[in-house]
Amino acid sequence: MEGRTVLKFFFLLLGLLVVLFFTHSPDHTPTNKATEFLDCSNYSSWCTFKNRFQPKTNNLNSPKKPKFINHNTQVPTHPLDPLTIQEIYKTRSILSSYPPFKSSPFTVHTLVLEEPEKPLVVKWKKGDPLLPRQVSVIAIINGKSHVLIVDLGSGQVIRDVVSSLNGYPVMTIEDMNSATRAPLADANFNRTIIARGIKLSDLACLPISTGWFGKKEENRRLIKVQCYSLQGTANFYMRPIEGLTVLLDMDTKKVVEISDQGRNIPIPKAENTDYRYSKVLNKVKLINPISIEQPKGPSFVVEDGHLVKWANWEFHLKPDPRAGVIVSRAMVRDPDTGNLRNVMYKGMTSELFVPYMDPTDAWYFKTYMDAGEYGFGLQAMPLDPLNDCPRNAHYMDGVFAAADGVPFVRSNMICVFESYAGDIGWRHAESPITGMEIREVRPKVTLVVRMAASVANYDYIVDWEFQTDGLIRIKVGLSGILMVKGTSYENMNQVPNGQNLYGTLLSENVVGVIHDHYVTFYLDMDVDGSNNSFVKVNLVREETSPGESPRRSYLKANRHVAKTEKDAQIKFKLYDPSEFHVINPSKLTRVGNPVGYKIVAAGTAASILDPQDPPQMRGAFTNNQVWVTPYNRSEQWAGGLFVYQSHGEDTLAVWSEKNRPIENKDIVLWYTLGFHHVPCQEDFPIMPTVSSSFDLKPVNFFESNPILRTPPNVEEDLPICRAAASA
Amino acid sequence: MEGRTVLKFFFLLLGLLVVLFFTHSPDHTPTNKATEFLDCSNYSSWCTFKNRFQPKTNNLNSPKKPKFINHNTQVPTHPLDPLTIQEIYKTRSILSSYPPFKSSPFTVHTLVLEEPEKPLVVKWKKGDPLLPRQVSVIAIINGKSHVLIVDLGSGQVIRDVVSSLNGYPVMTIEDMNSATRAPLADANFNRTIIARGIKLSDLACLPISTGWFGKKEENRRLIKVQCYSLQGTANFYMRPIEGLTVLLDMDTKKVVEISDQGRNIPIPKAENTDYRYSKVLNKVKLINPISIEQPKGPSFVVEDGHLVKWANWEFHLKPDPRAGVIVSRAMVRDPDTGNLRNVMYKGMTSELFVPYMDPTDAWYFKTYMDAGEYGFGLQAMPLDPLNDCPRNAHYMDGVFAAADGVPFVRSNMICVFESYAGDIGWRHAESPITGMEIREVRPKVTLVVRMAASVANYDYIVDWEFQTDGLIRIKVGLSGILMVKGTSYENMNQVPNGQNLYGTLLSENVVGVIHDHYVTFYLDMDVDGSNNSFVKVNLVREETSPGESPRRSYLKANRHVAKTEKDAQIKFKLYDPSEFHVINPSKLTRVGNPVGYKIVAAGTAASILDPQDPPQMRGAFTNNQVWVTPYNRSEQWAGGLFVYQSHGEDTLAVWSEKNRPIENKDIVLWYTLGFHHVPCQEDFPIMPTVSSSFDLKPVNFFESNPILRTPPNVEEDLPICRAAASA
Repeated sequence: MEGRTVLKFFFLLLGLLVVLFFTHSPDHTPTNKATEFLDCSNYSSWCTFKNRFQPKTNNLNSPKKPKFINHNTQVPTHPLDPLTIQEIYKTRSILSSYPPFKSSPFTVHTLVLEEPEKPLVVKWKKGDPLLPRQVSVIAIINGKSHVLIVDLGSGQVIRDVVSSLNGYPVMTIEDMNSATRAPLADANFNRTIIARGIKLSDLACLPISTGWFGKKEENRRLIKVQCYSLQGTANFYMRPIEGLTVLLDMDTKKVVEISDQGRNIPIPKAENTDYRYSKVLNKVKLINPISIEQPKGPSFVVEDGHLVKWANWEFHLKPDPRAGVIVSRAMVRDPDTGNLRNVMYKGMTSELFVPYMDPTDAWYFKTYMDAGEYGFGLQAMPLDPLNDCPRNAHYMDGVFAAADGVPFVRSNMICVFESYAGDIGWRHAESPITGMEIREVRPKVTLVVRMAASVANYDYIVDWEFQTDGLIRIKVGLSGILMVKGTSYENMNQVPNGQNLYGTLLSENVVGVIHDHYVTFYLDMDVDGSNNSFVKVNLVREETSPGESPRRSYLKANRHVAKTEKDAQIKFKLYDPSEFHVINPSKLTRVGNPVGYKIVAAGTAASILDPQDPPQMRGAFTNNQVWVTPYNRSEQWAGGLFVYQSHGEDTLAVWSEKNRPIENKDIVLWYTLGFHHVPCQEDFPIMPTVSSSFDLKPVNFFESNPILRTPPNVEEDLPICRAAASA
Repeated sequence: MEGRTVLKFFFLLLGLLVVLFFTHSPDHTPTNKATEFLDCSNYSSWCTFKNRFQPKTNNLNSPKKPKFINHNTQVPTHPLDPLTIQEIYKTRSILSSYPPFKSSPFTVHTLVLEEPEKPLVVKWKKGDPLLPRQVSVIAIINGKSHVLIVDLGSGQVIRDVVSSLNGYPVMTIEDMNSATRAPLADANFNRTIIARGIKLSDLACLPISTGWFGKKEENRRLIKVQCYSLQGTANFYMRPIEGLTVLLDMDTKKVVEISDQGRNIPIPKAENTDYRYSKVLNKVKLINPISIEQPKGPSFVVEDGHLVKWANWEFHLKPDPRAGVIVSRAMVRDPDTGNLRNVMYKGMTSELFVPYMDPTDAWYFKTYMDAGEYGFGLQAMPLDPLNDCPRNAHYMDGVFAAADGVPFVRSNMICVFESYAGDIGWRHAESPITGMEIREVRPKVTLVVRMAASVANYDYIVDWEFQTDGLIRIKVGLSGILMVKGTSYENMNQVPNGQNLYGTLLSENVVGVIHDHYVTFYLDMDVDGSNNSFVKVNLVREETSPGESPRRSYLKANRHVAKTEKDAQIKFKLYDPSEFHVINPSKLTRVGNPVGYKIVAAGTAASILDPQDPPQMRGAFTNNQVWVTPYNRSEQWAGGLFVYQSHGEDTLAVWSEKNRPIENKDIVLWYTLGFHHVPCQEDFPIMPTVSSSFDLKPVNFFESNPILRTPPNVEEDLPICRAAASA
């Protein structure tokens, strides 16, 4: 028991230090010394050297050396540029003089740019003075969630509203980290771990959002902690200590309740679970080296850190701790006029919803909302050059604030690269029918913006892919590691007929539990301007009259302009098909079609949980595949501003019920991409990527094919390559 | 009228020559002179130098020089190898001594390998003697469709069955070509063309399958011809002579009927319709050169012309005049045992169905079945190196027979290449939650088999993409040129309210007519052997009992093994989701799951035409997305063996109604990929590629992730490149 006592003492000490720090926080004023700026070890123990800016891993392989981004001296140049390190420090300094922060313990949960009003941003042009810089802060002060705006120009807190909503802000990483350690301070917890034959030093624990299921989950920030054995593998996720769930108060770090079931369930074996290349046996190399090469370098530039210009596209790109990637002011050049035309004011991952399909004690609450609970961007780790992104990729760092308001750098969080898979942009060959000697083919090259968020076990790869034909493809890839359940079964032949395992037996004693993934995107379309309409183009079967035609039926496209939000609550129907357009009713093409973009789904899945099930009420933004709302600054997060332990009172589904007018208005399109995931053995011990996507596709936006005039590939343009001498 | 007389004389003469040729056809015996083998100008006027083998365009850019395929000396080495030039000549020689061919005019519509019995092929191993070579011939002799088998060993016709089915064989290219010229022999036709102000020399005509709408389309081979003006553009498709439809007897080449409507509809302008790079003005180059480079060369080999070996895959590949690409004996190597395991015995495009949505006189019959009517492979033209396929692609030629039985070579008809788009095979990074220093990422490289069929205006790109994780993705890309309709309208503001244009006004006087595309795939799955079962894994909502759980609902996977064909007539339901597995019930994984593959749809569309509409009866194979039939040699073409003017009596839908047992049998999976296409201005004058796909994905086929042991990319393996001096 010696070890436990030492641990308890350690956590007590840590707790004291934290309290000391908070109460003395204004003393921790920023200085101009770069070392201190980037040294976040004062408080944020997780903010290790990994989060320091690492120029050496940045774009190593580019033929042109990357421009070194000096975060210490960076200044914003575009109204949407994220906060710089200097601005975050200034914000922290302003807050530290603001009375509530002075007098009470606080944690900073959000500290990002408060984007200027949309009309001002739209009007702003390069060369204009930068718009006033304001900061959106969400902090818990003395147990209350405050929504603040800090004006950097005046150095004032200009708004401070205490939230009356249920739910709490995005967890800080400090919340998550401390939660994983807190159970060790509890004697009962340690006893049961040891009784299960696990060394405390082999424990790896995860903080699991509790969701909300009624009174028990109200009026305090709660989290559940479940643990795994690290013994013999880095892939502890495959070694669950099944049935042991610790309910913690996130603020006091005190254990509220321990549910200690499933002691009879063995911890699955470590063998064959480690996926690290250094650890796998029988390594195989199936494929010769292959690389995307650009002898004259990439065709894109990233101006002033965030403005991406490529081919006929231009857009602003920034990392965000909650959304991950924010694409703003996406504009495409018209091939006829040469003018840049607005397509989308802002696009981002708004929320995720990942319900697991097991109603038992240790599983029912697993209904993650990864953006609003964990911070989708906070979980986006540095990308691995040459593997996460090909050669010639440009890497962009995230600059975020820790719980104490101190900035840190998440290096290489986003990459931008050109992709060429050998695909075809357009083609036509004359056939043997006409015998004409024509064969015209254009290769397809795209620009990809990528991030990969590791929300504990799962890895979400989010791609924004821009095509020269005006199409934007948004793709979500799922990889990483399953959340698995321990079981006493080693073979399906031991499972009594009719018993529900809630998933698939993946290996001895390991069940991959069935779950869904929903990723909801916020797409503020501005097709040639802000005032747009949403049109449902419904394909209906028309029956011909007797004698009218040898045909009995054909499809007709009926256009219906949505007047209000409820007209635009769209459930896809395979046998009642429609297209969904966002058009500008005031802008017609030469022959009189309204210019537009349509949203085109690929494979998706719909939630079929009971709409009254608490998780589905919180995740009600997945009740439809498509929604359209009038633009409203405060409606950006589909699950609500405060998602953690929310009751579902502030979701997209609730806003949409207001049934506001949406015709010829500034409107926002929402799309939910879904996956049902019944795990299979191939997902063990790490999952091959499964992807799905949807497209924003021009529809009568251009007068004609916008890539008609682009050239084919010719031999003379391609590089001359040789194997590296070392290969 | 001078010109007309000359033309008439020309066609009369041509007709006479054709008749002479047919009646003297046995004289045209093959010789061993290569020049004559490859010179198909004797009869096939369309079979020009374009169809000669062109080694110079073959794989120009490969660092290794391609092996030169000498079609003259090629011999089959695998039981599924397509007929060689020698074998086609030998078949022709055997047929020419066979009495019915001697005594009557004939045309050869199909002349391909009669594949040996499946069990023999499965048993055959490299080194075994080649299985007996037989030839499947479909010929029209004296107006009757004969299905013959020619045994090359014995030199005998061993089967000759006159078809009693409605419908005719795939058109020959000679049928199509002569049809486009035949109307010129009709004075009324020429009169109306001239009256419309079109020079006969500017005419380009298309042969359009008539479908079947009742008595009028029976008992003779009919075709409809519609024409366009070539004046001022190669893209005559954009210049329809609207409303003029010539009904021809395909055998007599006589005009049966001319429907001459729409004289008031102007021919749309030629301006801005030509898509050839040499003709476009204001050329733009948006992107720097980009290339997929492989410093050590590709990782695949094509053995003996048709056996592809790549990474952990091996399969047989051949061009086919009807299906296009046939992938056979696809096997994947088990990473644990090192053994090759069967996945699919045969996969191919079985049929297409492309109904247009306009019931009026000149359009109602446009309900194409491109494989059974036009020959999907016959329309696959030589691929364009560097544009249709990247550097390092391997090109495979098609060797087919013309209407007279003489072989010809369709060079570069299929390409095989490795693709790397910068995508991720699998990844995991530990998150800030655990703080562990792990970032493991594997790049995703795939092998693509591609062909592109130009069925007159449309281009279909068909990709079979093999992944190292065992997945096969089948992707269909649509590009090429719309089939458009002339209209008197130049702007939508001229169209009376409520008038149905049957499509979109794309340019002045041009309407892109709404249509669907369905591509039906034949997938003879043999998962670890021939006897397989089809399992529907239905995800259903389970409601919890009161007090059972804070959750009200969760999803449960219910497995249902299909007993008979009707159990496996699958319509996808978004709100009643299922997975569809083909399993081997006799082969279990270590932990007792049956090994299997599942079919995973991405975006698709379903036909909602009236099931009693004649086109939908003929295309009834699109009534479900998935079907499963017991293996039957004679059931490979979803629309029936004789699709041209078929009545729908011999489709997959009819076979499936037999409701035969399919549990633990050799079964065939059928999947239909659908597209609704409401044209938009971006599709004018040539369409950016639109793609959709579906996957065959291992599900408990492997014991675990089969690509766990593959290495990440490292800098040292990648090539060192420079721009070509000429660039």
